[in-house]
Amino acid sequence: MAENSQEFVQHIASKSENFSQWYLDVVLRAELADYAPVRGCMVIRPYGYGIWENLKGLLDKRFKATGHKNAYFPLFIPGSFLEKEAEHVEGFAPEVAWVTRAGNEDLAEPLVVRPTSETIIGHMYAKWIKSWRDLPVLINQWANVVRWEKTTRLFLRTSEFLWQEGHTCHRTKEEAEEEALKMLEVYRRFLTEDLAIPVLTGKKTEREKFAGAVTTYCVEALMTDGRALQAGTSHDLGQNFAKVFDITFLDKDNQLKYVWQTSWGVSTRLIGGIIMVHGDERGLAVPPRVAPTQVIIVPIMPPPHEETVLAAARDVFERLDKVSRVEIDAREEFSPGWKFNEWELKGVPIRLEIGPRDVKAGKVVLVRRDTGEKISVPMDNLESAVTDLLNSVQEGLYARAKQFMDENTHTLVDYEEFKAVMENKRGLIYAPWCGSDECEAAIKEETAATIRCIPLDAKPSDEKCIYCGKSSTSGYWVYFAKAY
Amino acid sequence: MAENSQEFVQHIASKSENFSQWYLDVVLRAELADYAPVRGCMVIRPYGYGIWENLKGLLDKRFKATGHKNAYFPLFIPGSFLEKEAEHVEGFAPEVAWVTRAGNEDLAEPLVVRPTSETIIGHMYAKWIKSWRDLPVLINQWANVVRWEKTTRLFLRTSEFLWQEGHTCHRTKEEAEEEALKMLEVYRRFLTEDLAIPVLTGKKTEREKFAGAVTTYCVEALMTDGRALQAGTSHDLGQNFAKVFDITFLDKDNQLKYVWQTSWGVSTRLIGGIIMVHGDERGLAVPPRVAPTQVIIVPIMPPPHEETVLAAARDVFERLDKVSRVEIDAREEFSPGWKFNEWELKGVPIRLEIGPRDVKAGKVVLVRRDTGEKISVPMDNLESAVTDLLNSVQEGLYARAKQFMDENTHTLVDYEEFKAVMENKRGLIYAPWCGSDECEAAIKEETAATIRCIPLDAKPSDEKCIYCGKSSTSGYWVYFAKAY
Repeated sequence: MAENSQEFVQHIASKSENFSQWYLDVVLRAELADYAPVRGCMVIRPYGYGIWENLKGLLDKRFKATGHKNAYFPLFIPGSFLEKEAEHVEGFAPEVAWVTRAGNEDLAEPLVVRPTSETIIGHMYAKWIKSWRDLPVLINQWANVVRWEKTTRLFLRTSEFLWQEGHTCHRTKEEAEEEALKMLEVYRRFLTEDLAIPVLTGKKTEREKFAGAVTTYCVEALMTDGRALQAGTSHDLGQNFAKVFDITFLDKDNQLKYVWQTSWGVSTRLIGGIIMVHGDERGLAVPPRVAPTQVIIVPIMPPPHEETVLAAARDVFERLDKVSRVEIDAREEFSPGWKFNEWELKGVPIRLEIGPRDVKAGKVVLVRRDTGEKISVPMDNLESAVTDLLNSVQEGLYARAKQFMDENTHTLVDYEEFKAVMENKRGLIYAPWCGSDECEAAIKEETAATIRCIPLDAKPSDEKCIYCGKSSTSGYWVYFAKAY
Repeated sequence: MAENSQEFVQHIASKSENFSQWYLDVVLRAELADYAPVRGCMVIRPYGYGIWENLKGLLDKRFKATGHKNAYFPLFIPGSFLEKEAEHVEGFAPEVAWVTRAGNEDLAEPLVVRPTSETIIGHMYAKWIKSWRDLPVLINQWANVVRWEKTTRLFLRTSEFLWQEGHTCHRTKEEAEEEALKMLEVYRRFLTEDLAIPVLTGKKTEREKFAGAVTTYCVEALMTDGRALQAGTSHDLGQNFAKVFDITFLDKDNQLKYVWQTSWGVSTRLIGGIIMVHGDERGLAVPPRVAPTQVIIVPIMPPPHEETVLAAARDVFERLDKVSRVEIDAREEFSPGWKFNEWELKGVPIRLEIGPRDVKAGKVVLVRRDTGEKISVPMDNLESAVTDLLNSVQEGLYARAKQFMDENTHTLVDYEEFKAVMENKRGLIYAPWCGSDECEAAIKEETAATIRCIPLDAKPSDEKCIYCGKSSTSGYWVYFAKAY
């Protein structure tokens, strides 16, 4: 088995030596995704899509539990819509794809393939909302969007991707603010509880916020190469789009008022996050809650025990099928060792080995993907052993990721140290910043690090800015990192 | 209540007098969908999307039970791909939308917004499939597609719609044929069991088949205005796309061979089918299995009983929430009568009325949407009464639709009678046809009726063709109708 293992692992690059290549190898070799014949686009293969489906199901439940309903808005947006909100068009115009011809005719007005849907949804809301009784409007959509990117990387940055975008309208400013923060908390819990990814929450600086938002809140995660990944955003849009699309309502006091809005989204880039947070030298490690296959049964069938073992394995399958997503790999053309590596590469949380001796002893061997630990378990309480171990792997992955994040968060007040960290091991830097756009821009220019977020509970600090050395009443302790 | 009812129903056109207007009124007033600001496109509102989500969930389960997995392929297809299969490009080119500009640059090769994905999926399959061990490939995708239509109607024909498209590859011709028929049967059972829509199954004539298929199988349903609706199709693609995209595999005999393929799909037009099969003068009637709200609780709260009734209604809600999709309409600004009409328009299968006398007597009143029948039910076995009644409404809707289809299927051998039926009451006509394209074309030209399907078990018949009067060994009894 050791030999097979070596042979197999050669097929993916070393994570510690070449992280980028390792990432690509995992995506391609675990059959999560593939390159499409159109530049910058990807094909999400069944195994990758299986993760997306589970992730979507869990997040959708959280949306519905907070009162949201799904709908579907058109892919095409009249070009003129995009131009109505000044910051919005500035942010999105450079990466838009245009439909100029359809049904054998040139279109009078070219259409934008949606890069995000604030404008077209705003147009519809203006039509639907009349009275305070129609509020709040709490709608989400699961859809594909297109942003023409120059440099792309599977899952992390692609010209087309899948996402969800929530768009809500409220009677008051306070309600909208509350909603934006509520959805941030939904994302935080989803990431930590379902994806086993620890996150920072906070708000973006003016420079980093969404084109058209008043405030952008975000969840940020730390990848194991020391870069940060923006995992989700929740925007308080104020009345920016309401004023442009004339979304008004008659309030209780009989006054016509503009609604207050939010929008929030996460995308298939989360799959990239799962890979880069939990993966290791052996490949992917998928958190049990979103794993398409939670348990892989590998029967070990030396002659003449083939039939006995296979029958026992099928029995185990039937039992575990009731409590988990389980599969059995009884292919004859591959050795057990080859299969072990294959399923480790694919990141299946638990491998169940069963051979002739196990059958005789009424036991099976469980191997957890996160630690490699082997556990011999008697057949009679198999269901509960597997259920418990799945929870344990979920917790183990979170704990490992949290420890990594903690160990790679550096509290610094000295800019030379800041630069050294960013050049070498990277990670998150928690440092004082005076609040000026100039310092933020200079740090980015010199180190490629950006302010990932201003913590929600950040209080003005009189600590001197790590860049300019001045203290400021508008200064905060903030998180910096190089980001994807 | 009778007055309210009259008042309210005026807002939708009479189904018997103006079917088209009634259809539109139901779609818009029940808030299933709305017109988008882009010609021919629609917005699917939460209530309509709720039906789609339930429908999708049930159908997806059936796909998975038959071994299929979901994936996601790109929205954009290189223009050159479409041109590779001659019939395919002829069929789709006129209704394609083109992206010619992206990221501020004109594209060297314009991109097609997918009208269907055989070509791009074929391209990927050629890359993935090497050996007979890789077969069968059983992949489905849920996606949006664009077909630029001249005349559109919400849900039935729109420039963008949502659908699923299954794309499979097989080792042998027989296996592919079997798959195409298996998926036809999946659709038949889904339509009858989940949507309560009786269907005909059969295959299309050469004239009506999918552009690029060897054989197109279909499920056809009869709408209550006497028109047929193609509700789903399953294509045996033979090796047409395999040859064009070079999808080959090394077979057990060490020979390189082309795969055999199928594709199959249903779309959001099914929602149009639900409206036109089950709707009545009072509006929509959603089959319980796909109803976003299965039970609507309307508390009747005359003073001073408001609190007692509301508390009892909330109690009922808590209990029914465990066995059904239930909502409570406790809005104070609307009368019970107004609410009754509103929820009938929306087609909720069961209305639950609870007033002061019911609370005192420990009973509630259930009103079924399909028949209007009122049933007084004691509180203590409410859960089972509601569960049973939901099943009963589901069966009732199917039985009514089946009876309508049977009564409106006419077996004819005389062309004058054929024409008279098509001009007046319409419906399905079962008639002998010689098998010639000329007769099929002439009938379409003269009556607007098309051959909806050749039944699967159709045997050659020596009955004379209803059009040309000649007998032919290639003739069949087939179904004709005017279609959407």
